[in-house]
Amino acid sequence: MRILVLGGDGYLGWPTALRLSWHGHDVGVVDNFARRGYDLEMGVDSLVPIAPLPRRIRRWREVSGSAIDAFVGDLTDPVFCSSVIERFEPEAVVHFAEQRSAPYSMIDRAHAVYTQTNNVMGNLNLLYAIAEHDPSIHLVKLGTMGEYGTPNIDIEEGFIEITHKGRTDVLPFPKQPGSFYHLSKVHDSHNIAFACRIWGLRATDLNQGVVYGQETDETGLDPELATRFDYDGVFGTVLNRFCVQAVSGHPLTVYGKGGQTRGMLDIRDTLACVELALLHPAAEGEYRVFNQFTESFSVLEMAQLVAEVYPGTCRIEHVADNPRVEKEEHYYNAAHSKLLDLGLVPHLLEEPTIKGLLTVAERYRDRVEPHAISPTVQWRRTASALPSHPGVELAEHHDR
Amino acid sequence: MRILVLGGDGYLGWPTALRLSWHGHDVGVVDNFARRGYDLEMGVDSLVPIAPLPRRIRRWREVSGSAIDAFVGDLTDPVFCSSVIERFEPEAVVHFAEQRSAPYSMIDRAHAVYTQTNNVMGNLNLLYAIAEHDPSIHLVKLGTMGEYGTPNIDIEEGFIEITHKGRTDVLPFPKQPGSFYHLSKVHDSHNIAFACRIWGLRATDLNQGVVYGQETDETGLDPELATRFDYDGVFGTVLNRFCVQAVSGHPLTVYGKGGQTRGMLDIRDTLACVELALLHPAAEGEYRVFNQFTESFSVLEMAQLVAEVYPGTCRIEHVADNPRVEKEEHYYNAAHSKLLDLGLVPHLLEEPTIKGLLTVAERYRDRVEPHAISPTVQWRRTASALPSHPGVELAEHHDR
Repeated sequence: MRILVLGGDGYLGWPTALRLSWHGHDVGVVDNFARRGYDLEMGVDSLVPIAPLPRRIRRWREVSGSAIDAFVGDLTDPVFCSSVIERFEPEAVVHFAEQRSAPYSMIDRAHAVYTQTNNVMGNLNLLYAIAEHDPSIHLVKLGTMGEYGTPNIDIEEGFIEITHKGRTDVLPFPKQPGSFYHLSKVHDSHNIAFACRIWGLRATDLNQGVVYGQETDETGLDPELATRFDYDGVFGTVLNRFCVQAVSGHPLTVYGKGGQTRGMLDIRDTLACVELALLHPAAEGEYRVFNQFTESFSVLEMAQLVAEVYPGTCRIEHVADNPRVEKEEHYYNAAHSKLLDLGLVPHLLEEPTIKGLLTVAERYRDRVEPHAISPTVQWRRTASALPSHPGVELAEHHDR
Repeated sequence: MRILVLGGDGYLGWPTALRLSWHGHDVGVVDNFARRGYDLEMGVDSLVPIAPLPRRIRRWREVSGSAIDAFVGDLTDPVFCSSVIERFEPEAVVHFAEQRSAPYSMIDRAHAVYTQTNNVMGNLNLLYAIAEHDPSIHLVKLGTMGEYGTPNIDIEEGFIEITHKGRTDVLPFPKQPGSFYHLSKVHDSHNIAFACRIWGLRATDLNQGVVYGQETDETGLDPELATRFDYDGVFGTVLNRFCVQAVSGHPLTVYGKGGQTRGMLDIRDTLACVELALLHPAAEGEYRVFNQFTESFSVLEMAQLVAEVYPGTCRIEHVADNPRVEKEEHYYNAAHSKLLDLGLVPHLLEEPTIKGLLTVAERYRDRVEPHAISPTVQWRRTASALPSHPGVELAEHHDR
C-alpha cells in the first residue's frame, strides 16, 4: 500500500512510518518540523537524542533496505498540501501532523489561535486535497480520547444511540473537551464527518488515549532510528514524566487528588492500531471512530505503579493547585472494543514495560532539565505571551 | 447598558443596534464591511439600497438624538479586537460578526477555510479579549439552528439529558451541521462553552432559525436607516428569495421535494430575542443556549404561503438536483420555549407579513438581478475557485 504519514518526523509519526515500511508498504513522510521548533521555543529537548530527518531516513535505508520519501512543508499551505497528495498518490494518509499538547494550546491567546488554525485549517486543506485528487484515499486521522471529556455515562466509540421522548437515533457522542487543543480535535472530527457525508470520503478517526513508551521493534534497530521521549510539563505525557522524575530524584507530581482517569496505551500498540485501521479501511462515505487505548488508569495509580517498580526511593507529591480545570474524581468507563475486534493484542502496563521506561530515563538522566518538569501553564489565566511564557523567565517577573 | 454590536453594519446587526439605541442603551458598532465586500465579489447587491455606515449613523443621530460609536476593523486582528473591548468598556457584546452564508462557505476550499478562520478565530480572539479585560461582560453570540442538523429525535435547547446503561448525565446536544459555515458555528459553541467553564465568562448562544423580513420599527423611520434585503442564491434567505421570485415573474424554486423543515423567525423577533437575552444575562460561568425561532415550516410550505398571498400568477418549481446534501424529508421538532419564557411575543408568519415582504420586493423590482437568484454552489463539488466562481462566468466555462 502507498501510505503517506503526515507528521512523520514526530514522536508517533516516525515509528509508525518505520513499522509500515518494515511491513512492505511504500511510505512517504510529511513534516514541517514544528515539533522540533516547539523544543527551541520552550528551551527543552527530547530526553533521547533524535537524528535529523534526512539522517534517520538514510539510516533506515541502510538498516532495512527500504526507502522512505520525505516532503517538507506545512499543511496550512494549500498548494503544498494539494501537491504532496498529487505527487505521492497515496492509497492511505495517516494524519499525525497536529499540535498535540493541551498545555501548549493554553499558554495564551496566540498559542490557542495557532493550535486551532494549524490543526483545523491543515486538516481542512487535507480533506479538500483528498476530495479533489482521489476520494478513495483512506484517511486515518489521530483524534484523542480527550474529545469526550469525562461524562457521567459510559463513553462509546464516536456515536451513541439516544432514545428521547419516544424516538431513537444514533448520533455523534457529545463532546466536552478540556483545552483549546482538545477542542481543535473536536472541530476536526466534525469537519471530517461532514466531508465523508458530502464527498463520499472514507475516514477512520482514532480517538487515542495517552501514549507511553519509547522503543518499538523498528526504532530499536539502531540508535539513530530512536523516536523522541518528552518529559517536560508542556509536551511530556504523564507516565514518561513520572519515570524521569523517579530517576532524577524528583517527587512524582500529581495534580490535586490524582483521581483523573484516562485511557492509556503503549507506543507499540499505537503502531498496531494504525496498521489495523489501514488494513481494514473505512467504506466509501464512512466516517468511523475507534477509541484507541488499552487500559484506564488514574494519575495516582500510574504514579503508584512507577513508585512500586522503581528500585530507589520515590515520593508522590500532590500539587494542590491543579493548573488545569478538570474533575479530580469522576466516573470513567469508555468502550474500546473495535480495535480488539480487528485483532489488536495489547501490551499491558506491567512491570517489564515500566522497567523498560525507567531504563531509558536512567540512560539519559544527564540530559534532564529539572526546570522543564513542573507545570507552568495555568488554564485559568489568559496572560499575554511575554511575561508568562513557560519556557522563558524574564528577570522582572520572578513572581509569576 | 453599554452594548457593543459586532457586525453592526449587517442585515441584523444594524437594526439591532438601532433598537438598543432607541431603548436608551449606549451602543457601539464594530464592522469590517466584509458583508459589503461579498456583494462586490458575487456581483449582487441588497435589493433595498443601504446607506454607508457613517451616513446611517449620522441619520440615526438626526432622527433619534442618540449617538452610536463606530469601530472599523477585523476581529481576527487580535490587537484591534482587544483594543475595541478596552476602549468601549461594554457590559455586553452582541456578536453577529461572522460570515453567515452556507453556500458561500461551500464555494471552494478557499471560502471554506476563510469562513472557519474568520468565524472561529475571530470569536476566539473575542473570548480572550473579554477574559482579559472584563470577564463579567455578557457575550450574546449568534449561533444557528443548523448546528443541530435534522436528528430523528426532538431537538432541545443546547443540552440533552441522556440515560445510558443505567447512568444519566446532561450533555451538549449532538451536532450534525450541514455546511462548513454551520460547522464554524459548532466550533464556536464548543469554544465558548469551554471559555465559560475555565474563565467564568457568561455567554448566551442564540441558535437562530432562518430570518425573514426587512423593516423594523427603527429602520422604518427613514429610508437611509434601511437594512439590507438579500434574495440571491448565496446570501438570500429563503422566504425573502421567494418574494423576489414572485414579483419578478420567476418560479419559486424548491430544491427536491421541499420537505426540508427549518425553524423561522421575523426580523423583529430577532431584535426582541437579543434584547431579552441582554436584559436577563447569563450567570457568571454560565454557558446557555436559546433556540431562537418562532415557527417551523418546510421549504414547500413557505413557497405555498407566498404563492397564495401573491396577487398575480406564481408557479412553484421543484429543482431536481438539490445543490445541497440534506434530507428532503425528515422529522423535525425543536424546543424553543426559553425565549418565550422570558417574554417573547412572536410575530407569526401570516398574510400581512408576507404582504409586507412582497411590497418591499415590488418597490425595488427594477434592482433584481435575475442571474443572481439560482443556486450556483454545489455541495458535492470541490472545484477550485476560478472556473466555478458563483459570481463570475468565465468565457471558456459555459458548461459548469
